[in-house]
Order: sequence, then structure tokens, then C-alpha cells
Amino acid sequence: MLKVVWAALLLMANVCVQRVQANESQEAKGAPKLGHVSVVIVGATGDLAKKYLWQGFFHLYANQVSSGYTFSFYGGGLSPKDKAAPILFEALKRVSCPRDLSEERCALVKEQFLKLAEYRQLKTVEDYQALGKHLSEHPKGEGIAEAGRLFYLSVPAFAYADVAEKINASCRPAEGVWLRVVLEKPFGHDFSSAQLLSAQLASSLRDEEMYRIDHYLGKQVVSKILPFRRENSKHLDPIWNKHHIERVEIVLKETLDAKGRIPFYDQYGVIRDVIQNHLTEVLTLLTMGLPANLSDAKEVLKNKLKIFSALEHLESHCAVIGQYKSYNEEVEQELNKTKGHYSLTPTFAGIMVYINMAQYEGMPIILTSGKMLDERLGYARILFKNDIFCVQKHDSVHCKPKQIIFYFGHGALQYPAILVSKNLFKPDLMDTEWKEVTEQKDINVLGMPISNYYILTPMVQREAYAELISQIFQGRKDSFISAENLLASWGFWTPLLHSLAKAPPRIYPGGVENGNMLDFKLLGRKVTFANDALVFINQDFTGGSGGQSFQVMQGKYRNNDMVSAWSEELIVRLADDLQAAAEKAVRESGRFHLALSGGSSPLALFQRLAQHQYTFPWRDTHVWMVDERCVPLTELDSNFRTVHDHLLQHVKMPYFNIHPMPVQMNQRLCVEEDGGALLYEREISQLVNGSRFHFVLLGVGHDGHTASLFPGSKLEAHGNSLVALTESPAKPHQRMSLTLRAINRAQKVAILTMGKSKHELITQLSRVKDKPNSWPVTGIHPTSGTLVWYIDYDALLG
Amino acid sequence: MLKVVWAALLLMANVCVQRVQANESQEAKGAPKLGHVSVVIVGATGDLAKKYLWQGFFHLYANQVSSGYTFSFYGGGLSPKDKAAPILFEALKRVSCPRDLSEERCALVKEQFLKLAEYRQLKTVEDYQALGKHLSEHPKGEGIAEAGRLFYLSVPAFAYADVAEKINASCRPAEGVWLRVVLEKPFGHDFSSAQLLSAQLASSLRDEEMYRIDHYLGKQVVSKILPFRRENSKHLDPIWNKHHIERVEIVLKETLDAKGRIPFYDQYGVIRDVIQNHLTEVLTLLTMGLPANLSDAKEVLKNKLKIFSALEHLESHCAVIGQYKSYNEEVEQELNKTKGHYSLTPTFAGIMVYINMAQYEGMPIILTSGKMLDERLGYARILFKNDIFCVQKHDSVHCKPKQIIFYFGHGALQYPAILVSKNLFKPDLMDTEWKEVTEQKDINVLGMPISNYYILTPMVQREAYAELISQIFQGRKDSFISAENLLASWGFWTPLLHSLAKAPPRIYPGGVENGNMLDFKLLGRKVTFANDALVFINQDFTGGSGGQSFQVMQGKYRNNDMVSAWSEELIVRLADDLQAAAEKAVRESGRFHLALSGGSSPLALFQRLAQHQYTFPWRDTHVWMVDERCVPLTELDSNFRTVHDHLLQHVKMPYFNIHPMPVQMNQRLCVEEDGGALLYEREISQLVNGSRFHFVLLGVGHDGHTASLFPGSKLEAHGNSLVALTESPAKPHQRMSLTLRAINRAQKVAILTMGKSKHELITQLSRVKDKPNSWPVTGIHPTSGTLVWYIDYDALLG
Repeated sequence: MLKVVWAALLLMANVCVQRVQANESQEAKGAPKLGHVSVVIVGATGDLAKKYLWQGFFHLYANQVSSGYTFSFYGGGLSPKDKAAPILFEALKRVSCPRDLSEERCALVKEQFLKLAEYRQLKTVEDYQALGKHLSEHPKGEGIAEAGRLFYLSVPAFAYADVAEKINASCRPAEGVWLRVVLEKPFGHDFSSAQLLSAQLASSLRDEEMYRIDHYLGKQVVSKILPFRRENSKHLDPIWNKHHIERVEIVLKETLDAKGRIPFYDQYGVIRDVIQNHLTEVLTLLTMGLPANLSDAKEVLKNKLKIFSALEHLESHCAVIGQYKSYNEEVEQELNKTKGHYSLTPTFAGIMVYINMAQYEGMPIILTSGKMLDERLGYARILFKNDIFCVQKHDSVHCKPKQIIFYFGHGALQYPAILVSKNLFKPDLMDTEWKEVTEQKDINVLGMPISNYYILTPMVQREAYAELISQIFQGRKDSFISAENLLASWGFWTPLLHSLAKAPPRIYPGGVENGNMLDFKLLGRKVTFANDALVFINQDFTGGSGGQSFQVMQGKYRNNDMVSAWSEELIVRLADDLQAAAEKAVRESGRFHLALSGGSSPLALFQRLAQHQYTFPWRDTHVWMVDERCVPLTELDSNFRTVHDHLLQHVKMPYFNIHPMPVQMNQRLCVEEDGGALLYEREISQLVNGSRFHFVLLGVGHDGHTASLFPGSKLEAHGNSLVALTESPAKPHQRMSLTLRAINRAQKVAILTMGKSKHELITQLSRVKDKPNSWPVTGIHPTSGTLVWYIDYDALLG
Repeated sequence: MLKVVWAALLLMANVCVQRVQANESQEAKGAPKLGHVSVVIVGATGDLAKKYLWQGFFHLYANQVSSGYTFSFYGGGLSPKDKAAPILFEALKRVSCPRDLSEERCALVKEQFLKLAEYRQLKTVEDYQALGKHLSEHPKGEGIAEAGRLFYLSVPAFAYADVAEKINASCRPAEGVWLRVVLEKPFGHDFSSAQLLSAQLASSLRDEEMYRIDHYLGKQVVSKILPFRRENSKHLDPIWNKHHIERVEIVLKETLDAKGRIPFYDQYGVIRDVIQNHLTEVLTLLTMGLPANLSDAKEVLKNKLKIFSALEHLESHCAVIGQYKSYNEEVEQELNKTKGHYSLTPTFAGIMVYINMAQYEGMPIILTSGKMLDERLGYARILFKNDIFCVQKHDSVHCKPKQIIFYFGHGALQYPAILVSKNLFKPDLMDTEWKEVTEQKDINVLGMPISNYYILTPMVQREAYAELISQIFQGRKDSFISAENLLASWGFWTPLLHSLAKAPPRIYPGGVENGNMLDFKLLGRKVTFANDALVFINQDFTGGSGGQSFQVMQGKYRNNDMVSAWSEELIVRLADDLQAAAEKAVRESGRFHLALSGGSSPLALFQRLAQHQYTFPWRDTHVWMVDERCVPLTELDSNFRTVHDHLLQHVKMPYFNIHPMPVQMNQRLCVEEDGGALLYEREISQLVNGSRFHFVLLGVGHDGHTASLFPGSKLEAHGNSLVALTESPAKPHQRMSLTLRAINRAQKVAILTMGKSKHELITQLSRVKDKPNSWPVTGIHPTSGTLVWYIDYDALLG
């Protein structure tokens, strides 16, 4: 169970609101009366509130005290007033002054602020009813109109729905008075819980009333990303793409552990804690299309969603995870687990993300974060490709790496900044709130002396919470997480989280001792730890499976050659064999004619071919279909669509070499009279020498069907045809298929079968004689070619 | 005219061949009698012969003296014997001993060698006849069979054909005795001269008799490239491709000038002198497919030719060129030019080459060489992409750049070596003639301390010429340049050489003073000098054109909007407008329907779209054809083929979105009854909302035709059709075309016209009224869309 420091409830002596004094100073400056704003922090004595929220609201008050608004502040909590009020009062007393306020003035403002704040127990429905009543009556009593109510929910996420419901039921203001409810992460722990939470909240609050905070968006450097991109678009537009960017790194390194937070942390881990939200938000800011209006929340959201929808699906091999060594002890202690309990929660992760858009295709984006690392540091770095050839001085500034760093703070530099390599461009400084740093210490930032950078930093450093609280007060939503944004993010991360659920993290000692143990390597689309040496693995992680053998076995099956291996190796072998056949055919005849099946088995093969067989002679390959469902080719269940999306789309093959079956003619599907089968047969005869395909890839169904030749159909009826319309017992019933005659003419036929579910079939098929009408696959006998069965160990051995 | 140091002719006292002595020592070692070999160096007292060739033949002799062969050596030249013999004798006396020979033994061998060598004047036909007679009779006289004759032509290339003819006429040996004729570069100065030379030589010599030397192929490190790739294929195979290689650099830096060689050099320049041959050979060795048998010259050639045929066409913007400052003075002096003559011959070039193969696509290969640079150095470096993310120690070895360097010699290291970054792999050392270097100086090689590399070096350093002479003697041809190889290389380089013929080189001071002046930048497919400051340009280079204005002008033409600019800017503008239309359409309807014309004008646009408009929404774009020639779509003159090869092949567009016109049906072209036009019309109606294309791109012919709507055809006859079969006055006569009605329905129509040859038409069209039957383009009036003319300044202003 979660153990969260959550303040007990207690009541503070009611403080008379010093409206008159405040108004006096407003009127002195001629500010209009704009109305009264009530601020309620639910969870007012929690860590977050004590550390950041009251401070933020104090700054808000100090900034707005002369603006014409009046305020009252309520700290709410479950504890009774007598216990909690002193705690709150202590916290309030500790707030510090904004830098731009004189000491004298600040003391005055702070005195007012303290008088405007009170504690209220907020536990029961009645508490909220009383609060609601008070919020309405109090401004009236002061003779001033109400402007708005701001509720800040600094409570555990499980309490959100309940509190929101109570606010809705009892504290909703009158028409024309705004209600804003601020929520803190975590917003769920995966897609469906986020969706549920979202639905629950939606029953109490309208979307525009909710402000989901990601405090990263309040960090000055983060909120400067879009403006910086806009202000420097002249320089950035030509280079902000895959052709110029080598990679993007978004990094948040922490030195702290999770001690004291384990009940929360152990359920979340590093990906949910900071990557799904903070780092992902930075990712979208770096890559999204620039909206015409940067503070138009709708446009910002729309462009962010485009990025989310283009993010390539993550699988477990896109990430490495680690866990600091003492974490498990902390879990044992804080969760009262017995010795020998092993938490798999990652405290470190390195993840590679790709965006499937022409602009960014193939450009790796690395997200990484961890606890107990060697230093505290957060940054996003855009590293550009080296596009210069230095004939002479390899070490001069302009030959060095070019990068832009959004430096969130800490680390060597210690202050938030945007750094631009001097050999890239001199950034424009259009914002008067930012300045260029000229004074320079003798330090290195990400491998280069800071003298190599132009450095921009905010004139005044501001806390993220103060910044965001000010935006909430202004009703600006562009730096908050909309429901759509949130669900899109969870939609992206959830599959990875699920696929990592049982993955053992690498154990690391923590601190500088980690050395290079957590460094990771990008291998195509895979990520692995770079160093195998000195790895601590809890014995229990290795399990009892004893390790799989990755050998490929050759043998005989149904009197034909058989290749067997674990599925991954089997696919590699089949891809190699296919390529060898392709190269041979191209060498001999200048062309390779390949007939492919649809279905799910070949997907891994297609992926392998598309991503790893760099030298496959695609330009000289013709792709034909073994069979097709009578649906439009663009439908998702079209075999051609499968081949298209998983293979053809990813390789460079001439349009002319692609031969889908003509299942749709004259706006109808597979009508005998339209002659589609004959048309395809003619196309084959014209282009394929002797109508002999070089390679035919087949699968086999549980009923023994292959291609779209099903048991019970009279295969003799196909006569001499190479292509026929056939019937499937499964939907869609109508099919077009190569006939046994066409397949058996081929030079090579491969039958690929994988998975435990095929084991029974494989056993059965090993026993039956050739009966093509009952087991169509037994009719495959290339007349002057070869047949090879590719069967994985799961299918072969069960 | 060429001034080449070419020895005068003179006859040396005939030296009795010491056969008996030689044979004694052979027999003592039991070597069989293998026959007599005659070596003739034509141009025996020239620089090359004196510096390398005699030395090489002496090593050959020293190695073979006990092998069973006997030798005689003839130095030939135009000078009479009394003048040339002493010069030859001096040169022969200077040859040094192979390292593996004892001093005593060497003195003996050298004495024999001197006795075996004689000078012969080789000027007239009679001289060659006498030589031929002597070569046949001499071994007979010694009672030994003849094994072969080796002619080394160390003469200017213009003399090759003549000498080869004389050898063929007078010095061809008897059947069964080999003839090998060695040729030195230059082999022509462009494709056609190389072809001519090749044809001339072929009339005298069989291809297998010719050994074209590129001495780079005799360098130990260069000849080790293929074996190294083979021996380390386990490590290299997975990374030897575009996914892992960031770039390849092939570099030859010289400190010398061209003084004394100007008559030759000024006709050639750096590209012909060293890039077309040496660096290009290295390029093919690095990138070619590994032949099964590395010393199978045919297979090596076949694989090299594959690379040549895949090299992307070079244009002037793929290169930067320079000329050292004092070069022009040298030209004035050596060529007796008057003051004010400016040679454009480049003495420096930086060139970027791409290979259009799946394995290497988009991977830049940089070739660079120059005279008067800061250091003497030659290397080929394969720089790998940074595929590691170092969480902690950015400066540890494994976080550093990974590279393999084939270090030809000189520079910091001073010896030939292959260097492999330690964080890459430990290279296998399968060859006993190579060793690993352990002793390490404190020096940097290409930006990294040598302690970061594994270093392999030959046990014994050998001169390239000695190596190649030994191979010629063995009849091994894999390290020589075949005629096909040569022509392929010239075929690749000639277009660049022609396009650079009038380009002014950047003038550089020479030596270390060059600073970063010659550094160059890779911008997409373009190369430019990186630094604009401090450039010396001879005034005459700038010419009088005064610089073009790159402004885009907007105006009216035929009552419609017109955009005009220099062609390059015009294309950029049209591409931008097209993209804006695409984005708008996709935003509004999820689809962009684009109809494209064929022809040559849009090629630049297609290239721009394919290479620069990264964010073009191709996935949601449908491409239709404005018109088509009635030829199979795969024919080169098919409009679709043009669009396919220049645009579709390079962008990621679903197969389903591509709509070629069905000009071929039922195996015949554009037959009315097949209903192709109607089929296309139906496809348009089905997919394009209201049959209104979003964008139609048109051109206009000199006769005023647009799409395939030609003057004199009755456009009214098309009625309500959207697609029609039409007739062209030019071949192929039959066409399929969108009708005026289909075009005028479009939302945007653009007419693109470029080039001076269109100026008259544009002038004429500005005057004529709408007469679609005489000037079909005047019938373009979008009914509820817009028409914009894009006319470049050449077409507009003439």
C-alpha cells in the first residue's frame, strides 16, 4: 500500500481578510476592481505544497496585489484545524520574496498574504458544502464581485475523483465566475487507468476547468523551446530534420534514491515517474510543427498529437532498464517484504524512439533517466551531423561537433540555459527576459568547453511552479496537459511498459561507481547495454530455463528438406536463403520473381528483409502474390496490404515490379466474368520466364490449407490454370490463389510454420500421405524445383 | 606542348649475359630451368624508371634469380646509345638491395644484374625489328627456351599507340611465349580520349597482354583492403553499410607543387591526376562486394563495375576546387604565357560521391586531394556513426569516435598501417606478413591518440612498383586496371570535369597558411567551401556578369497571376506553393490530389520535392497523370516513368496512391474499345471529390500545347469527358490526356515554363486571345479555381 505523507486535518484561527488595505494600494495605482479570487489548496500541508505551492501562490499574490484583484487563500486537508493550522502557518512563514520586490515592500505584502490565508478541514461532504457557502458569501460580505475559484489538488491521484466530485457538488461557483482545478501527476499508471481517471474526472469537471500540471513545462528552458525554435527559425528550419540531426538526447539524471517514496515509486518506476510525462513533453516540444500562435493551446495540442500519432511503436528491445543495488532493500523495508522478494521496478531506463515522419524518419531520439546516477543534470541536446570536412586543422572550433543544448539546470553549469555551438549559428535574442552570458567559467558542458557555445539564460530565474500558477491564474492552458495529450502519451508508453513488466533490470551500484555499466548501444532499432562485464544480476532473474540454443538444425520432413531453429534464428536463415536465391536469379537472369503469402507468419520475415538485408536486390525483384482475399487492396485484411505495409513500403522497389492480384475489377470483387484470374495468369506468363517463379513463400493453416487452397475444394478443377478463384471456409470466403500447378512450377518453394499452436498440425502432417484434397499442402511437389520446410522449434517440438 | 624529361638514345656496350653463372647457382639449389624472360623498359632513363622501375626490376631479379628463370634487361629510349648508356648505368648502379638479402649476396646479385642489362635505341621501326630479332635469338643462342617478354612503357601517353604498334609488328614472341606490356597513367584525359586510346591499343595488343598500372594498387595498405575486409568480415559485415557508417573519406594531401611538370599538369589538374585513378580505385575497393576469390581478376572487375554503375551522377555542385597561388606564375613561366593569362586548372578538389545501392545509399564518400597543402598524407577513413549513449564518462575510450583508417603512409605515423578504433573491434591478423604494432609514440592520428587504435602494419615495407612488377611477372591481373574499369571510371568523372571546365578555383596561399580556407561543407548533395572570409579571387574570375538577382517577382500574365524568378528560385517557390496547397488539402479533407505532367521542365521540381521538402505530406497525397504517351509505362519515354524515377521512387508514398494512366490494356496500347480513358475517368470520379484535383501541374510546348492537347485538334469533341485519347504531331502520336474540362475543374493550376527557348512563345502568348484550338494552353481557365504562371527569367526576358 501507498504510504504518503499526507497532512492531518486541523483548523487555523480565522484571519480577517485585509481587503480595505489591499484596495487602498490598488486605488492608489489606479487599478480597476476586477473581483475576488479564492484559492484552495487541497493537501495544503503536504511536501509539495510546503516546498513549492505556497511559495508559488505567494509570488502570484505579490505580482497581482496591485492589479485590481482581491484574494483569499484556503489550505485544506483531512486533519482537524488545531493540528494542521500551525503546520500550515509555519510553511507560510517560510515563503521567500520575489527578487524584484524591495525588502520593505515584501514584508508588507507577506504580512497581508498571511492574513489572507486560513486552514479548513476538508474531509466530509459537509466540509465542502461549508466551504462552497463560504466562498460565495465571503466576497459578497466584502462588497466585491467574485472572479474565480482555483482549487489545487495536491493529494494522491486516487483521491482525485472523490475531491473533484465534491468540488462539483458543493463548490461550483455561480455562472460567470471561473472554476479552475489543478491536478498533479501521476495521471494514471497506464492507458486504461488514465482513461478511467479521465472519465471519472469528466463526470465532475469540464475539460477547460482542469489544469493537469507537468512542472517540466513550467521550467524556463522548457517553456522557451518553442519560442527559441520560432525566433531562430531562419537558422533552424533548414537543419531541423533527419538530414542534419544526428540524434536527439533527452536526459534527466538524478543522484537521489527513492527512499521514503517506495510505496509510490515501486508501483511506477522511472518510465511512469518521469519519462512518460516530463521527457515525453520535451520530446514533443522539440519535434512538433511550430504552431502559428505559440500560446494557442488548441494548436499546440494538435501539433503535439501529430507527433504522438507518428511515434514508432516501442517494443521491449527498444529499451534498457536498470535498478540501483540498494533499491530492493528499501522495498523490503518500506513495503514489509520478506527477504528474497525481488522488485522488477526500473530506476533507470534508456529508450530509443523514432518518429515516422518524413522530417525525422530514422533519426534516433534517446530518452534516458535514472536515480542514483553520478550527477544531477537535466538537458535536451540536439546533436547535428558533422557536415564539414576540415582539410587542415581538425581541432579548430568550426570542425567540432555542432549542438544545441536546452540545459534545464544543475550539472556543471548550475543555471538554466540554452547553448548553441558557435560553429552552428549565433542565436537571436528576441526576448528581453533572456540575456547572453558573457562571463565564462572554465568548465565543460557535454564534452565541450563552454567557450565553444553561445549561451542564453533567463534574466531572472523563476521556479516552475510559480510560473505555472501564474499561467493558471491567467487562464492560459498551453503549458498544461490536456486529456487528449495525456491519453496519447499513455497510448504510446503502455505497450512498452507491459512488454517490460517481467524484464529483469540490470543492477547498478549507484553513484560514480556505475562507471560505464549503464551506457547503452543503439543497434538498428534495438538498444542494449554496451558493456557485458561486471554485471550484477540477482540470481533469481536468470530463471531456470537454462538458456536457449540458437543453433539451426537441418533435417528431413515429409521427404523434403527441413530447416528448424528458434523462431528468430529461423527467420534469419530464411531471409538469408531468400537473398541467396535472389542474388542467384539476378545474376543469371537479371530478375528475381518472388511470390509472397499474406498472414502473420511472414511478418517477422518481412521486417527482417526490410531492415537488415541491406544488399537484397530489390530493384531487380518482382513481387507477386500467392493468394488474395476478395477485398479492396487498401483494406487492412488484404494480403497485399500486409505485404505493402510491412515490406514494400520500406524498400526501394520500382512501381512496375509490384504485382497485386486484380481482385477488384469494374468496381466489383472477384467476379468470374471480369477475368481477373486470367489477367493475372497472363501477367505471369508475360513477365516470368516459363511461368516459373524463382521463389514461392507459403504458410500452412491448421486445416492444412496453403495459399488459398482449402481442404474439400476440388483442386483438379483448376486444370492447367495458374490462377483460380477459390472458396475459404473462413471469411472473406472468396479468394484468388495461385494453383498447385503454378506453385509446383517454381524453382524454390518455402513453407514457413511457426508457433506452438502449429505443433499438432506438424505432427499430423508428418504422418499423412499426399492427399491434396484433404490436406492441400501435401500437394506441394515442385516438379523441377525444391521444397524446404522452415519449422520453428515451437511448432516442431511443441 | 608537353615537356617531358625523356632520355635521348644511346647504346651501351653489350654485356655478355652471365647465364652460366646464374644457372650454376640455380642448379646448385635444384631449381628447374623455366626459360628466359626479356624485360624492356621503354623510356629507361626517365624519372619514373630511374626512381622506381629499375629498382623494382632489380628486386624481381633478386627474388627470381634462384627460381629457374633467366633474364635479360633492356633499357630503351630515343637517344643514341653513347648518350644514354652512361645515364642508364648510373641509374642501375643506384638500385638498393632487398632487406632480406645479405650484403655479400646482394653485391653478387647486383653485379649479375648489371651485366644482364643493356641499353638499346628504340626509335625507328628498324630499331624494334632489330630488338625483336635479338629477343628471339638471344635465348636460343644460350640454349634456353623463351618464357616471356615484358615491355614497360614509361613514355608519355601520346606515344603508347605508336610503341604498341611497333611491339606488335616487330617484337611479338612466338606462340606459347607470353607478351606483357605495362602502361602507366594517364590513360586519356576524359571518356572519349580514353576510349580512343583503348581502341588504338586494342589494334596492337590483346587485353590480357596489357597491364595498366595504378601504383596505388601496389601500395601495401591499399592491396590489403580487400583481404582485411575478408579476414574481419565477422565484425565488418554487420556494420559495413549506411546504417553504421557516417561517412568515408579518401584523402591524398601533398605538400609539393607542380613546378617542372606544368606542361603535363596544366592539361590534367588534380582530378585527372590522382582522383580519377588512385582515389577512385580505393573507393571501389572499400565499397565493392567481396569476391569469393580475391585474386580472381574477373570477379574483382565485375564487382568494381557494379560500384561504378551505381555511383550517383556528379554535377559541378558536388565539388569544390582550388588552385595554389603561385601556380599561375609557374604556368606563365613554363608555358611561356603572357602576364594576365589565368589557368583554371584545379590543384585542389573536394568531391562528395554517393553510391545508389541499398547498402550505401545516402552515405557520403568524400574524395579530396591537393598540392601545396600543409602536410603529406594519404588515407582512407571509415568513420562510424556514434551508436552509443554514455550515461557517465563521456571521455572514456568506448564513448569516442569509432573509425577504421587505411593509412597509406607519411603524416604523423610515417608508416603504412591499418588502424581500428579500440572501441570497434580487435582486428584479426590472419596474414603472417602483417604484425600488430605495440610500440607507441605519443602522437595523434586523425584526431585521436594512437593509443586508441589497434594498429596493423606490414612486417616488411615494400615499394608499390616492386610489388606490382612482381605481380606482372606472375601474370596476376587483379591489381591492374582493365579497359572496362578505366572506361567506367572516365565515364563517371567526365561529366564533372566538363561541368567544372570553366569554374574558377579558389586561390589558396599554400602550406599551413591555407588555414581553414579549403575546408568544405556538405549541404545535402552540395559541397561548398565552409569559409567565405579571406578568399583571394583573381579579378578575372569574377567576370562581368555582375551577379544575378535572386528575387522572386510577382505580376500578371494573360490576366492571371504570374511568379517569375531565376530558374532555381522559381522551382523553390513552386515547390513551396505546392506544399502549402498539399498541407491545406490534407488539413481540410485528409487527402491531396495532385496531377503531374511529364517532360523535362518539372524534373528540377521533382528533385526539389524529393530531396528538400521533408515535410511534404506524401502519405496522404495521390498522384495522377495529366497526360501519357501510349507506350508501356516502363519505357523511358513514358511520362509516368519520368515521374516515377525522379519523384515517386524517392518518397514514401503508399502504392495505392499512385495512379498511372491505363494506356496499356489487353496487351495493346490506347485502343478506344479497351476503354482506358473511361476507366481513368471513373477512378478519378471515385477518389477525387467532385473530380476536382487540388493541384494540376502543366507545362506548355513551343506550339502552345499543354497536357496532350495539341493545336488543331477539336477540343470540343471531348464533350463532358475528363480523359480522352488524343493525337500528337510528334512521336509517339497516340496520347491519353486530361481534357480541358478536367483541368479547368481543378482548384489550382500551375503552368511552369523555363528556359530561353521558351521566350518567343511567352512573348507570343502574351499577345494572343483565347483560341484553344490553335493555342490549347489559352483554354486553361479554372472555373472556380486559380491559375498561376511560373515563368523563369530566361523565358520571360529572353
